[in-house]
Amino acid sequence: MINEKYKAMLGEKSVIRMISERAAARRAEIGADEVFDFSIGNPSVPCTPAFTNAVIDLYENEAPSALHGYSPSVGITSFRGAVADSLNRRFGMDYTEQHIFPTSGATGSLAHAFRAVTKPGDEVLTFAPFFPEYIPYVEGTGATLTVVPPDTTAFQIDFEAFERALNPNVAVVLINTPNNPSGAAYSAATLERLAGILRDKQTEYGHDIFIVSDEPYREIMFDGAAQAYPAKFYDNTLTCYSFSKSLSLPGERIGYVAVNPRATDADVLVPMFAQISRTIGHNCPSSTMQLAVERVIDDTSDLSIYEANMNLLYDALVDLGFEVVRPSGTFYIFPKALEEDANEFARKAMEYDLFMVPSDSFGMPGYLRLSYCVETEHLRKAIVRLRQFVTEVYGERE
Amino acid sequence: MINEKYKAMLGEKSVIRMISERAAARRAEIGADEVFDFSIGNPSVPCTPAFTNAVIDLYENEAPSALHGYSPSVGITSFRGAVADSLNRRFGMDYTEQHIFPTSGATGSLAHAFRAVTKPGDEVLTFAPFFPEYIPYVEGTGATLTVVPPDTTAFQIDFEAFERALNPNVAVVLINTPNNPSGAAYSAATLERLAGILRDKQTEYGHDIFIVSDEPYREIMFDGAAQAYPAKFYDNTLTCYSFSKSLSLPGERIGYVAVNPRATDADVLVPMFAQISRTIGHNCPSSTMQLAVERVIDDTSDLSIYEANMNLLYDALVDLGFEVVRPSGTFYIFPKALEEDANEFARKAMEYDLFMVPSDSFGMPGYLRLSYCVETEHLRKAIVRLRQFVTEVYGERE
Repeated sequence: MINEKYKAMLGEKSVIRMISERAAARRAEIGADEVFDFSIGNPSVPCTPAFTNAVIDLYENEAPSALHGYSPSVGITSFRGAVADSLNRRFGMDYTEQHIFPTSGATGSLAHAFRAVTKPGDEVLTFAPFFPEYIPYVEGTGATLTVVPPDTTAFQIDFEAFERALNPNVAVVLINTPNNPSGAAYSAATLERLAGILRDKQTEYGHDIFIVSDEPYREIMFDGAAQAYPAKFYDNTLTCYSFSKSLSLPGERIGYVAVNPRATDADVLVPMFAQISRTIGHNCPSSTMQLAVERVIDDTSDLSIYEANMNLLYDALVDLGFEVVRPSGTFYIFPKALEEDANEFARKAMEYDLFMVPSDSFGMPGYLRLSYCVETEHLRKAIVRLRQFVTEVYGERE
Repeated sequence: MINEKYKAMLGEKSVIRMISERAAARRAEIGADEVFDFSIGNPSVPCTPAFTNAVIDLYENEAPSALHGYSPSVGITSFRGAVADSLNRRFGMDYTEQHIFPTSGATGSLAHAFRAVTKPGDEVLTFAPFFPEYIPYVEGTGATLTVVPPDTTAFQIDFEAFERALNPNVAVVLINTPNNPSGAAYSAATLERLAGILRDKQTEYGHDIFIVSDEPYREIMFDGAAQAYPAKFYDNTLTCYSFSKSLSLPGERIGYVAVNPRATDADVLVPMFAQISRTIGHNCPSSTMQLAVERVIDDTSDLSIYEANMNLLYDALVDLGFEVVRPSGTFYIFPKALEEDANEFARKAMEYDLFMVPSDSFGMPGYLRLSYCVETEHLRKAIVRLRQFVTEVYGERE
């Protein structure tokens, strides 16, 4: 009586994973120096010493039974309060700890957010290009994911396409800014217009539409800019966050959902998240992680390397004649392939030990996602190899 | 568009939680010394210094990017191998790391196990008395939980009741040994008979029936006995484990599912668990936790206090005329109340600042669950208070 649905999923090999596995195999063959792996978004800068010291201090000085005891089902109050205060300071919000629900990273955060404000059969809209894992995340709830075609000029929102896609079945609009894979950050103007449309549609349809805002890259912004805070523009916003990228802790599984205090039923959403946890096998993230991150709540790793790498790679891509939008944040860049089929382009690149992810699974074919969370010196070598590949295979370009 | 199902669950206050909240409120009022809280099963002994040292060593000496990097979606190989080797050494099994799937504690473990071998509409059988959270755990998958009435003489299995309950819709039999709340441990004879019946029924029904064995208390056994290992008796067994109790780490969320190598489709179950994770917002437990627990895989906290406490409390209960089965393990004991309505008994006990959980939510009314993970000195005072309560309210007893 093996469950056939999950068994069938075994066939759906993630393209990202397949490519990164090939890169790993190649590293084993010829050494890491000669393999240029743009496939995986794993933070390459270490966490801050302040975080490491916080954990060591907790282990050395707290009573183990208190440190490792069960977290309350809605999370540790002091951590929730620290998150609320930090968001209030930075974004002019007015959260209290009652609006913050600690989760096991952004994946856990989205799992709770979707379930709280959809029911099976509802529609979740998102915008291409999008993180492919959104498909199982949404479909696992019984809702369906509808993808709105992209604005390819700046990877903001194609509002005409968006308005065509809206219908009374839509319960959630899922946004991700700055965006994986494009690196684009929604501007205040984009968020304002999005909010205006949704307010009108809420009235027209006579029911709430929530924005679920997936913001793991919020702190990785370039040129001194800050990401406009989506919840500031729209009351019915659930902000999903992970410290994986900002603190370089993807393996520690620590994040949260923040419920806008002005959302419908704002006061029951966090207790509902705790009920949802009981049905999906979640418990709060590690108690120690909550207590440690609380102590470094406004810190980030040194994220400047991502900006340095982005500038190098963007300039090289432009120089090589790629059509590419300059990223505003994240550690991704999303150029158009030099031939129609990005899979074919990526296949040819692999012969030069350049590993990139073709964009089909991101909801728009013809592009490539390059992740540049690598040492800058390694990236320089990768660019030399990229130049060789492009000129040899596609000829001299300008 | 708040989800009404989860909103309705807000009304279902857990009895355990309600009683422990009252105990906490009372502690704030009159001080911890005078409150005798038998309600919560939170390990009272510290984790081993070896575990603490392992974590500190990892934080001090491992490269942060490696230590805090993403765990593979099926878990860290070395941790999986350490778990397999430990189970093989201790229980004569032949797991490889391919059969071990790290999870966020037993809750995460059960969430994956149920989903892998049931489909919505299937039936999961379990035996009273049972941990009340099994209801949302099972119902969250779309399956239904059917409770087989108890064998009240020794809290083994009432096999006649079990055979009456079996039907072709049953996909899983969920066992929990040693048992929360009774403290009973299934004997080899019980497990052998259970396995025999299930093998016959698999043939009769023409489909697999899995045992999902929830074993967080496996290491807390008394009188030098060891829990017979259920997977040893029955091929289609998924063993769900948490280090919460054995290592006193409930807040760190670390456990696993072990797939019996002789189970049907044994080789695809772990990859299926990784697919299930994508749909329920799970990722592997903390990378650091996997690496730290790997180093102390055969250790436990000093669990002897639970046995000392059990003996004290069991003797006192017998002396006070309670009908009670002597626990073989866990940190619970499960006497029959001194009046028919255990809720009424528990309510009266609260007037003496004695906090116990009436058994209705465990699937059999009329009993009380007492957790004795407290300092032994505090337990001695609790027993004096219990004696006062019983003699004043129920008269002299023998």
